[in-house]
This record gives sequence, structure tokens and C-alpha cells, in this order.
Amino acid sequence: MEADMSDLSAYLKSVAQQIDGMIEKNFTHAGGELDRASAHLLSAGGKRLRPAVVMLSADAIRHGSSKDVMPAALALEVTHTFTLIHDDIMDGDSLRRGVPTVHTKWDMPTGILAGDVLYARAFEFICQSKADEGPKVQAVALLARACADICEGQHQDMSFEHRADVTEEEYMAMVAKKTGVLYAAAAAIGGTLAGGNPEQIRALYQFGLNTGIAFQIQDDLIDLLTPTEKSGKDQGSDLREGKQTLVMIIARQKGVDLLKYRHELSPADIKAAIQELTDAGVIDAVKKKAADLVADSNRLLMVLPPTKERQLIMDVGEFFVTRSF
Amino acid sequence: MEADMSDLSAYLKSVAQQIDGMIEKNFTHAGGELDRASAHLLSAGGKRLRPAVVMLSADAIRHGSSKDVMPAALALEVTHTFTLIHDDIMDGDSLRRGVPTVHTKWDMPTGILAGDVLYARAFEFICQSKADEGPKVQAVALLARACADICEGQHQDMSFEHRADVTEEEYMAMVAKKTGVLYAAAAAIGGTLAGGNPEQIRALYQFGLNTGIAFQIQDDLIDLLTPTEKSGKDQGSDLREGKQTLVMIIARQKGVDLLKYRHELSPADIKAAIQELTDAGVIDAVKKKAADLVADSNRLLMVLPPTKERQLIMDVGEFFVTRSF
Repeated sequence: MEADMSDLSAYLKSVAQQIDGMIEKNFTHAGGELDRASAHLLSAGGKRLRPAVVMLSADAIRHGSSKDVMPAALALEVTHTFTLIHDDIMDGDSLRRGVPTVHTKWDMPTGILAGDVLYARAFEFICQSKADEGPKVQAVALLARACADICEGQHQDMSFEHRADVTEEEYMAMVAKKTGVLYAAAAAIGGTLAGGNPEQIRALYQFGLNTGIAFQIQDDLIDLLTPTEKSGKDQGSDLREGKQTLVMIIARQKGVDLLKYRHELSPADIKAAIQELTDAGVIDAVKKKAADLVADSNRLLMVLPPTKERQLIMDVGEFFVTRSF
Repeated sequence: MEADMSDLSAYLKSVAQQIDGMIEKNFTHAGGELDRASAHLLSAGGKRLRPAVVMLSADAIRHGSSKDVMPAALALEVTHTFTLIHDDIMDGDSLRRGVPTVHTKWDMPTGILAGDVLYARAFEFICQSKADEGPKVQAVALLARACADICEGQHQDMSFEHRADVTEEEYMAMVAKKTGVLYAAAAAIGGTLAGGNPEQIRALYQFGLNTGIAFQIQDDLIDLLTPTEKSGKDQGSDLREGKQTLVMIIARQKGVDLLKYRHELSPADIKAAIQELTDAGVIDAVKKKAADLVADSNRLLMVLPPTKERQLIMDVGEFFVTRSF
């Protein structure tokens, strides 16, 4: 993390502690087996970035309102976790955040139900925020729309597995839904509950959408560039699986065929791929797309009052595209 | 259907037509594959009983408000359908309402996502009702709590499959969650959105809970007593599978062992089982439990104004426990 990110770093740490505390309080003393399955992945850690976006957006509209929207911040983390539990079933993944996935530790039916329970709890938490009733209804509608969009994004992402000709536009549309809209909803929900006006809420939504997309693009770069010992993820897994990421798509545009790396990869193979992509300008082109999205977002946020929190929100976007794991 | 049920019959028919029209408008012109999968079971028909309960409860509080709560009525049907889609995956069922289940016609991931899309849409529809904002938030919270409870009920129901010693209390608690709470939410949501006071809403909730439980008990009786050609369902399937229904549990209390029927059943086998259960007083005892639940519910509804709609709601309870398919 950059030196000038120390404020954000401290802020994110503080949010993570608060959210962890709420999870502990609301989930981990639960009684039945289904409650334990629902709490499993939530309690396994995570950066709690979506809650941070909810709280920063609220404070950027009305200083001090972040404490009132804490339940909504939790709702966003709970929503994110429900989508992970269901995605893990669909993708057949057995590990997540260093623990067995829910359907692996329990079984597929329990995985479906654990996700469904969290889905409901998210809407309950939204309703528990301290805010006017009208904004609460708006927040519910925003979260519901985001959930429907995320499903569509996941469905598109799965359909890409059978294709090698996904276009940049298709990829961007998929990522907007799969990853962007939940950040968009996080920012807009925080702003709405804090009493933001429609122009501010639109700006926050678009900020969240752009930076959410940039977040995913950066994730694709990390998969390629960051050694496993640093990221905790399997370096080059997208290459090996021939996944249609923005790196793969821009490479194809520039005449670099990455499908030849679709096999078990040695460190030398990965190094060669990175060199080839760097030489062809693919890495720089992908980085620029992410950076441009964040720069656009920052301009949008100029409709907010010039507070410390507005700067921290902008730093979130910067963090999303500079992090290396 | 009884002769004095003709008003209710006409009312239910009219609601079903309105809900079918809303489903047609909101779902069946949908574009993508996931939209088609989400619409599939919704469009395959159904009695639309939960929407009817929403609308009757609204009209019982404030005459004419049923048209304002139509989106919430649709939300209840959409919620019910999402639970069916996910249940069918968990239970491995391949047919529902005469059509292939979603995960059979598409695949398991699409089934999970189609259910998840409907889940989101339900909350969107609730927000679209014409009502004050406070009651809308309350309606969202009611629906969310019901969804979490339904998951718990389904989880309990699945756990019963491995047991032959389920008690009456356990069964009633499971059915309350799996079937009762959604009728409870339907009645309370209709009443809340129409501006009912807390006492009225509590009465409607409890009415829905009781009659929802009675509905499920009657379903268990129908499985046993109604010939396949009349019910469209496989007569005696619960017996064959050794399912822990109230019939099975009361039979055990009365010393009748139904586990001996846990095999392929001829019409003569089913007839013998019915005779044995009738002679031991099991059928009458089960019928009485359902009838008592409905009678208790009717008393609760005395806090509502004495309108035609209140009578129709009571008729719903009566219909639930007298229908033979």
C-alpha cells in the first residue's frame, strides 16, 4: 500500500473491526446447523470493502451518519457472502478464504439454504438502519436490483466458459453486473440513507460501478502478475483455464494468443507470458483502462461536499487499482 | 368445492387472472436465457393463493386497497416460486406443475440463479406497492423474516428424512416455518400496506400462520386419500417414502406402524392403509387438528371490521381444510 494511503488503510482496518464485531454478534452465537453454515464464510474474514464504501458514502453526505448505516454496511457484506456461497456451488470450488466452501463442509442443499438465509438477512439489516423510511425503501430497491443484476452477471460469466471470442464490450457488461453493481449499490445505499439528493446518489452509484469494474480488472492482473506466496492465490490460474478476462481479450486484439498457455504452467511459462504481454503493450493497456475508470469516478464525486470522507472514497478507487493482492 | 364457497371461488379465480396477467407483463417478454428460466415455473400456473391472501387482507383493512397492493401480492407468488425452484434442486425433483423443473430443463447453476433472481424481484415488487413508506419497510422486513424462516423449515424437513421419531411438536414447528410463515407474511403484508394497526396485523399474521399449517396438514391428507386421477399427484407417495407427516406421527402415537407401507403400493395396499388409519381414528384426529387451527384463526379475525372481505378470508381457511386436491 502507498504511503499516502495510510489514512485509508487505518479507516479500512477500523471498518473491518466493526463489521467483524457485528458478524460475531449477529451470527456466530447462532444455534442450529443452518445458522452455523450461514455464518461459516462470513466469519472467515474478508476485507469488508463494500461496508467501507457504504459508510464512507454516508459520511460524505452527512458527517457522522456512518454509525446510523452500520446495519446497511453489514447488509452489503452479507449480500456479497451469499453470492460467494452460491457461486462456489455453481463453480464447484472447494476452498474460499482459506476455509472449505459451505457446500463442501456441509452439502449442496445446505449451501443453497445458507446462501438463501443470508439473502434474507441482508434485507432485514437494511431495514434496521437509522434513516427515514423513504430512503430505506429506496435502499431496499437498490439492493434488490443489484442482486438481480449479479445473478445475470454470474450467468453471463458462466456462458463465457464455452467461448473464446468474448468481446471487450461483453466482458465489461458482465463485470459491471457481476462485480460493479454491488459496489454501486453500496455507495448509493450509503448516500441515500444519509439523505443525499438524487444527483449525489447518481454520482455515488456511478462511482461504485466504475470502481467495482476497475476492482475486477485489477483482480485479473493480480492473478497474472502477483506470485502465489504474496497473493495467496494460484498465480496464472486464469491463463491455465483460458478464462476470458480483459487481459485475454486485449491480448487477442493485439494479436497475442494466450490460449497456448492453457495447460499446467511452470514459473518460467508464467514469466514468458508476462514478458510477451508486456512487450505487446497488453499489461499497460489493461492498467490504463482500470485507471481511466477510477479517474472518471473521481470527477463524478465533485458533486459531493469537499470533505475528508470524499477524499477517502476517491482513495478507495485508487487503492482498488494499485493493490497488488 | 362447497356451494357456500362460490363467492370465494369466484374471488380466487379473479385474483389468479390478475396475477397471471402481471406475470405475463413482468416476466414472459424477458430477453435472456436466465430470464426465461426465472419465468418458467411462474408461468406454469398455480392457484395464486398467497396473492389472494395479500389482497383480501388489504381489503379487509381498507376497502379498495387491494389494487394498491397488487405488486406485493405478486411478490408473494414470486417468493413462493423461488422457494420451489430451490427446493426442487435440493430434493432432486424433475417435475412440478406438469412441467420439467428449472434445474432439469436448464441445469443446476441456472436453477440456483433463476431462484435468486426471483428472490430479488420479490423485494422489488414489494417496494412498488402504493402505500406509505413506513408500512413498506415493515412489509420488506416481514418478507425477509419469512424467507429466512422458510429456509430453516426446509432444512428441518430435510433432516427429518433420516429419522423415524419426529414428534408432533417438531413437525408442527417445521411446517410453521416451511409453509405457515409465508401465509402469515402474506396476510400481515396486505394488512400493513393497507394501513392496519398493530393489533390487526398481529391477528392477520397469526391467521396466516395457522391456516398455512392447516393447509400443509390437508396436503398430507390429500396425498393419502385423493386418487391420483383427481389430485394429479401420486397417491400414497408419503407412505411409500416413509415421510414424517402428521398422519405418520399421529399413527405412531396410536400404535399404527405405517413403515410397513414403505414400498411400492398397489391400490389395495393404499386402501388397506386408509382403512387401518380410519379405524384407529388417525384420519379424524388429523382432520380435527387442521379444523381446530382454522377455527382458532377465525376467532382471531374478529378484531377486523365485519366486512365481506373478512368473511372471504375466513372462507380461505375453510377452503384450505376442506379441499380434496
